Amino acid sequence: MNAQVTTPRQAALWGGRFRSTADEAALRLSGSLEIDAPLAAHDVAASRVHVTELLSLGLVSDDDAARLDDALATVASQLEAGTFAWRPEHEDIHMNVEAAVTEAVGPELGGMLQAGRSRNEEIVTDERRWLIDATRALVAAVRALQATIVDRAGTAGDAILPAHTHTQPAQPVLLAHHLLAYVEMLDRDAGRLADAARRADRSPAGSGAVAGSGLAIDRGRVAGALGFAGVTDNSIDAVADRDYAVETVGAIAILLGHLSRLAGELVLWSTPYVGFARLDDAFSSGSSMLPNKRNPDSAELVRARAARVEGDLVVLLSLVRGLPLAYHRDLQETRRAMIDAVDSSLLCVEVMRGVMASVAFDADRMRRAAEGGHARAILLAERLVAHGVPFRIAHHRIGRLVAQAEDAGIDLAELPAQEVAAALPELDGTAMPTLAEAVEAADVHGGTAPSRVRAALEAVRSRLAQEVSA
Amino acid sequence: MNAQVTTPRQAALWGGRFRSTADEAALRLSGSLEIDAPLAAHDVAASRVHVTELLSLGLVSDDDAARLDDALATVASQLEAGTFAWRPEHEDIHMNVEAAVTEAVGPELGGMLQAGRSRNEEIVTDERRWLIDATRALVAAVRALQATIVDRAGTAGDAILPAHTHTQPAQPVLLAHHLLAYVEMLDRDAGRLADAARRADRSPAGSGAVAGSGLAIDRGRVAGALGFAGVTDNSIDAVADRDYAVETVGAIAILLGHLSRLAGELVLWSTPYVGFARLDDAFSSGSSMLPNKRNPDSAELVRARAARVEGDLVVLLSLVRGLPLAYHRDLQETRRAMIDAVDSSLLCVEVMRGVMASVAFDADRMRRAAEGGHARAILLAERLVAHGVPFRIAHHRIGRLVAQAEDAGIDLAELPAQEVAAALPELDGTAMPTLAEAVEAADVHGGTAPSRVRAALEAVRSRLAQEVSA
Amino acid sequence: MNAQVTTPRQAALWGGRFRSTADEAALRLSGSLEIDAPLAAHDVAASRVHVTELLSLGLVSDDDAARLDDALATVASQLEAGTFAWRPEHEDIHMNVEAAVTEAVGPELGGMLQAGRSRNEEIVTDERRWLIDATRALVAAVRALQATIVDRAGTAGDAILPAHTHTQPAQPVLLAHHLLAYVEMLDRDAGRLADAARRADRSPAGSGAVAGSGLAIDRGRVAGALGFAGVTDNSIDAVADRDYAVETVGAIAILLGHLSRLAGELVLWSTPYVGFARLDDAFSSGSSMLPNKRNPDSAELVRARAARVEGDLVVLLSLVRGLPLAYHRDLQETRRAMIDAVDSSLLCVEVMRGVMASVAFDADRMRRAAEGGHARAILLAERLVAHGVPFRIAHHRIGRLVAQAEDAGIDLAELPAQEVAAALPELDGTAMPTLAEAVEAADVHGGTAPSRVRAALEAVRSRLAQEVSA
Amino acid sequence: MNAQVTTPRQAALWGGRFRSTADEAALRLSGSLEIDAPLAAHDVAASRVHVTELLSLGLVSDDDAARLDDALATVASQLEAGTFAWRPEHEDIHMNVEAAVTEAVGPELGGMLQAGRSRNEEIVTDERRWLIDATRALVAAVRALQATIVDRAGTAGDAILPAHTHTQPAQPVLLAHHLLAYVEMLDRDAGRLADAARRADRSPAGSGAVAGSGLAIDRGRVAGALGFAGVTDNSIDAVADRDYAVETVGAIAILLGHLSRLAGELVLWSTPYVGFARLDDAFSSGSSMLPNKRNPDSAELVRARAARVEGDLVVLLSLVRGLPLAYHRDLQETRRAMIDAVDSSLLCVEVMRGVMASVAFDADRMRRAAEGGHARAILLAERLVAHGVPFRIAHHRIGRLVAQAEDAGIDLAELPAQEVAAALPELDGTAMPTLAEAVEAADVHGGTAPSRVRAALEAVRSRLAQEVSA
Repeated sequence: MNAQVTTPRQAALWGGRFRSTADEAALRLSGSLEIDAPLAAHDVAASRVHVTELLSLGLVSDDDAARLDDALATVASQLEAGTFAWRPEHEDIHMNVEAAVTEAVGPELGGMLQAGRSRNEEIVTDERRWLIDATRALVAAVRALQATIVDRAGTAGDAILPAHTHTQPAQPVLLAHHLLAYVEMLDRDAGRLADAARRADRSPAGSGAVAGSGLAIDRGRVAGALGFAGVTDNSIDAVADRDYAVETVGAIAILLGHLSRLAGELVLWSTPYVGFARLDDAFSSGSSMLPNKRNPDSAELVRARAARVEGDLVVLLSLVRGLPLAYHRDLQETRRAMIDAVDSSLLCVEVMRGVMASVAFDADRMRRAAEGGHARAILLAERLVAHGVPFRIAHHRIGRLVAQAEDAGIDLAELPAQEVAAALPELDGTAMPTLAEAVEAADVHGGTAPSRVRAALEAVRSRLAQEVSA
Repeated sequence: MNAQVTTPRQAALWGGRFRSTADEAALRLSGSLEIDAPLAAHDVAASRVHVTELLSLGLVSDDDAARLDDALATVASQLEAGTFAWRPEHEDIHMNVEAAVTEAVGPELGGMLQAGRSRNEEIVTDERRWLIDATRALVAAVRALQATIVDRAGTAGDAILPAHTHTQPAQPVLLAHHLLAYVEMLDRDAGRLADAARRADRSPAGSGAVAGSGLAIDRGRVAGALGFAGVTDNSIDAVADRDYAVETVGAIAILLGHLSRLAGELVLWSTPYVGFARLDDAFSSGSSMLPNKRNPDSAELVRARAARVEGDLVVLLSLVRGLPLAYHRDLQETRRAMIDAVDSSLLCVEVMRGVMASVAFDADRMRRAAEGGHARAILLAERLVAHGVPFRIAHHRIGRLVAQAEDAGIDLAELPAQEVAAALPELDGTAMPTLAEAVEAADVHGGTAPSRVRAALEAVRSRLAQEVSA
Repeated sequence: MNAQVTTPRQAALWGGRFRSTADEAALRLSGSLEIDAPLAAHDVAASRVHVTELLSLGLVSDDDAARLDDALATVASQLEAGTFAWRPEHEDIHMNVEAAVTEAVGPELGGMLQAGRSRNEEIVTDERRWLIDATRALVAAVRALQATIVDRAGTAGDAILPAHTHTQPAQPVLLAHHLLAYVEMLDRDAGRLADAARRADRSPAGSGAVAGSGLAIDRGRVAGALGFAGVTDNSIDAVADRDYAVETVGAIAILLGHLSRLAGELVLWSTPYVGFARLDDAFSSGSSMLPNKRNPDSAELVRARAARVEGDLVVLLSLVRGLPLAYHRDLQETRRAMIDAVDSSLLCVEVMRGVMASVAFDADRMRRAAEGGHARAILLAERLVAHGVPFRIAHHRIGRLVAQAEDAGIDLAELPAQEVAAALPELDGTAMPTLAEAVEAADVHGGTAPSRVRAALEAVRSRLAQEVSA
Repeated sequence: MNAQVTTPRQAALWGGRFRSTADEAALRLSGSLEIDAPLAAHDVAASRVHVTELLSLGLVSDDDAARLDDALATVASQLEAGTFAWRPEHEDIHMNVEAAVTEAVGPELGGMLQAGRSRNEEIVTDERRWLIDATRALVAAVRALQATIVDRAGTAGDAILPAHTHTQPAQPVLLAHHLLAYVEMLDRDAGRLADAARRADRSPAGSGAVAGSGLAIDRGRVAGALGFAGVTDNSIDAVADRDYAVETVGAIAILLGHLSRLAGELVLWSTPYVGFARLDDAFSSGSSMLPNKRNPDSAELVRARAARVEGDLVVLLSLVRGLPLAYHRDLQETRRAMIDAVDSSLLCVEVMRGVMASVAFDADRMRRAAEGGHARAILLAERLVAHGVPFRIAHHRIGRLVAQAEDAGIDLAELPAQEVAAALPELDGTAMPTLAEAVEAADVHGGTAPSRVRAALEAVRSRLAQEVSA
């Protein structure tokens, strides 16, 4: 089955010492054009910079350099227009570009394009360039999502809902406070992505196949022309290293983990049982069978992508770890995983921004839920403490009161004032605290007291404003 | 950015209760046509069987059933010819098929196609059908790979190489014995795949959205018509379950792990240092920069796919575990991972068959290597044991002899006979054992003694012959 | 820092050719006694069988064999009593046992214990034996959990709750039907575990270090004495293979995935919002701070173990895949992962049995929930179909009716009869279907109609009875 | 089986509202003392700081504060001495400490210890504190490993070995250049770890159970006393967040990936085939059966730990992602994974330092290998380019020359000068380049030309000196 369709190895640009033809299944396994396509524009750009080096070194004349550049510019235009004719027999983007240029300018001049460099360095130059640009876009998207959540927090006013631990209602908090928790997570995400991009921002161009280029390329000049902040310091490491991919995908996996937690919460809040939120129709879908269904599909799919990106990270870690120095063909799979994770994250952040911009919150349902769950228990206990009752003893006494309420099928707050007064004589019959009093009690930095939340909102707004202007 | 391009929810087949339009990014996130396409033929086949049920139940007339079947047959032909016009606004294959049929036969009759069933059951019916067929193909490919390795073992004769532990030469073994180790692994793989397929081989059709179809569908008849061995026993489980995917991908991960070990060994054996093997040009490639390179790309890429499939398995396990019963949209990602793993394995097994059929072994290099590594050490120790020396003491004495040889920069076998005789007087000056004697010594079932290896070869051949005839 | 504390290599039983001492950190890295301890009893048992082989081969006398057996019996007793004195400088269980025996019987006789075998085969013999036994215990625990769930299903009567898709209520089903979904999952789990154990059930004893034992050991007899069903067929594969661990842990990961779904559902059902279930106090805990909390800790911890076991599986797959044949020291880590996964699963299954035996269901809350969610929508649509309305059109019409109810803030079932009759004239003013009618409508094999559920319950009971008697 | 052994819930410090006893298996599942023990000292330290807050707030008197502090100091001493009596029925370290203090000072005063705080915040305070300290130690260990490798690079002189791509020799490079590749990797590792520690360095103390403490704790003062650089900004995020663990373990996974690549290379280099390196006896071991074996166990075990830590990372990512806000008991498992990864990395870095300090390199074997592999191919091609031959054409011509040498069974360098001159007339019969010329040719920043390597060595040394003095 794999015997008939074959490709002459001689045709390959590296075919000088090969005699037979490639196996068809092996070609299907090795082809990476589909994966690499997003990097092609960067590859052409790097080739154009390389031509200027060849010119500086006197290896091509001014005229020849111009002809090469023209040919490369044509490829760039075709790539942008989607009209570039990929030829699978040329395996990858580098060979396709070289072949197209050679066709345009002839084998004498085209044959010079690859002088002094190797695909091993080109692919990592392309990957880093693509990744840094994509990460910038991703950080901007994360900032936009933060801004959207901050807006929602700003308009949430003093809406109160129960904070949960163990998925059980625990204490009343402001909705704004809850939303700002996600803004904090996203802040760390942006920081991690930026740190990863900073570490990635060094040009490997000029590292050759593994030992360094044999031509006296000015690596700093090339790096500058390609927009890198610096150059890598060891050629073997430069072609073997995929840390930039692993670190960035690691940061993305954490980011998508946060979106997954938010998405899972929205799925929960959208149930008729909880009812705190309703996703906009634009992010929901119906059932092909059940006319009554209204499903939070976008949230579910974001959650699923987080699992998918975890898979991408496993591929990256698993694969690189097993390889001695330096380049191995196995590394091709790292590209696929990296691009999938980055694209997934861009899409998910954008979708979640739309979700958060349009989700309808039901403050009444939230408040009703906050009224229940014996939510005043901790405040009562702390009032006892203020009256000198040791906390652990106060905790036990209020715990028994909760059990009493549960037996009666009511909330702690609904216990007859008399019963409460009898059980907690220290409080001198003070009224059962209100929800407002409950949230005000958490009056520490980062706490849910309204004044603290307003301060946090202000701080976040000004931080975001600085980020955007930076 | 996501506000302009939208799709009317009303247009969706389930749009009765929806008012607004879908978000463009959300649509990109939710679209699964590209992933699902391989399942489309199975989906149409299932719909044709469903039409016969609607006919049996008197919900459509003979004429109407024929018209529906014609329309479905047309879709099937278009799918096969690659001319079916996918419409992304219909989200998935089920809706695309329903829309195409409705267009062909009108909304009155087309509107009947989905009566009594749900996409929730359809997708798992399609997936199971696709998976069982693909697994069969995969098992056949594994058997073919086994046969190829058995052939190579058969023609390897008494070629001897060092078996390795800790990547260090340990003892001489027959090349045939080494190759048969892989045949054993692949045997377990085929068994695992078959077990998984057997467990998957039950039709969920008729399970409805979650509770069971509201029409009195004969599930057994449907299952039979679709080629399933039986039916699932609980409708909730039927639409929530993805065990078939996880189990099969788990089996594939182990299989690719075996191919990865073989591939890694070939990479090692292909180095000039070891030189036991040379991959055929058809499975090698050159360097774009270094004219001297000859790289075992196919082996490297197979190894990398094993990492990729590990990622697929993580996605599956991670994702399903987090979902309460029953169907969730998250499950869409399981399909992508399952198909990727299955396709990867088919490709890798095929490539490795080609690699193993064409790889050149260098029996001379193998034998020279087996001569070294102090490989007779264990045989000398065991001869001492036969003369009554406790094994641990024999081990120490031979160990010292090895150190003596190493100090002299020679192999144990090259020590002057006199020195050996002095150190091991029990052996009465017996000659240093030959490699042939060394392999013959491992004369137990599964050992490397030539007679044992011949017996193993025969046993494997007859096992494989039975498999093929089964 | 690592220079002072060292161990003489000469002291090691394999130290003949070594001159220096071991590094202290290296020893900490290599020590496996803590991990291996659970296997020690199996190791001693295997050594006792080996002694009978040495006797058969005439390498030890009857008396010597008896002395060795006595010494081993003493070690066995000490292990059982927990009084065996582990000596870390002997690295692993095999060397510790050999050293203890040698101390008891002297170096001449003790030095014979290891004749004709290798730690490479011993460790896999021990691991397989341990694993098969543990898997049997696990399957029994799974059967017991199934029986408990079946009991709860049996006593659930006709309690109705909403089945969910997308975590949204979809259709009413019997609680018994819902519970039986988990029984189905566990059935597949038991099957997978049994298949894995069957494949593992072959003795590697006699495979030597890699090439096969140099003594004419009767491997079949040894296998029989150790309780194995057969022997492995290739010595290289035998010492390199860890499939049994990977496959079993893979099956466990799926099993724990099921328990995780059940646990997650219990967490959800235990919220005051849903209120379908209340975990017994024995499986819940309180908060150290909030007196009102009652947390479903056991369910949460089971869920977390599922993630932990996913990690174990990744370790196994990742690690083995990278190793050429045959044994490598890396494999030590596979043991840790295997034992952790097996122990975790035994504990989790036992805990979930306790949880399911004692959880309180609230049938009233369930029924009230089932009344809502517009749960009759599909039944109304199907009644329209029975009156000849094409399903897709019926779906749209009922969808609009649902929207109408939602606008009014009521359930579909609460719409004035008049409005319904006007919207659905075909139904001739039939009353809105009851919940009982809704569940009865899913009258197919595996559906939720009470008669079908009763049949399923009977079938499962008889299947389980057979398993237990088998 | 789980019915008899139980613990009264009333005995639990949070038991006010509980009536029954805990299930024995559930207790085994929930116990975390063994995991948490390393954090206990930090927990006590945090409690001592909390006592000063209670004093500031007037909730305890000076005398009482002193008594509490004395009791806590006693616990601290007992922990350090290993004499603290853990009581499993108190579940975790916090409750054990509280119980011990209460026993010492009585329930009235002891009952005050937990006022105004929650285990939810305590555990993350402890974890962060432990992690930051451990990360500092890890970074120091990484720096020490770098220094060791730099030393070896410094003494390697102009030793030349072949650099490899695809595990095939590619080009000659300096051994020092090869070693410095690892120094670069470790530099990024140290940077990632430091970034993670910086992000982790904020105190959650005062966040309460979820909403913020109800006492007016001065969170900044507490943070300062605990040695944190700042405070967290949102109480919900503070108790739900485990980013610090995920990010740090992610960085560790990359670090261990680098050590794994180095370890794998040492395994390969230690084979008799390659022979570039010989691990010191202190890091090697022998075989219990084969007297001739000398195995690179330390390298193998480091490699295996990298897989184990990949598992830890999967647990962390998988688990956290599935949880809505805020704290869940599932998070207990994150602690185990974090501690295992950190401890593993400390051990592996230390072992690899010892390995690298003592490994013997064989410069002769390296040079002999560099002579082969047709390693001058690229230099010849580049010389042709310098004579105006287009690179692609030069590549083909040299490729054919390589094939010619291979056919003759010799290296390119061994081709008769006459043949070379005939094939490459442009070179005017220049002599075949020497290895020295080959390495000098890669004369770019980061290239292997000796002057470049010396410069790199200097740069690294001065960078490390700054790190140490910083």
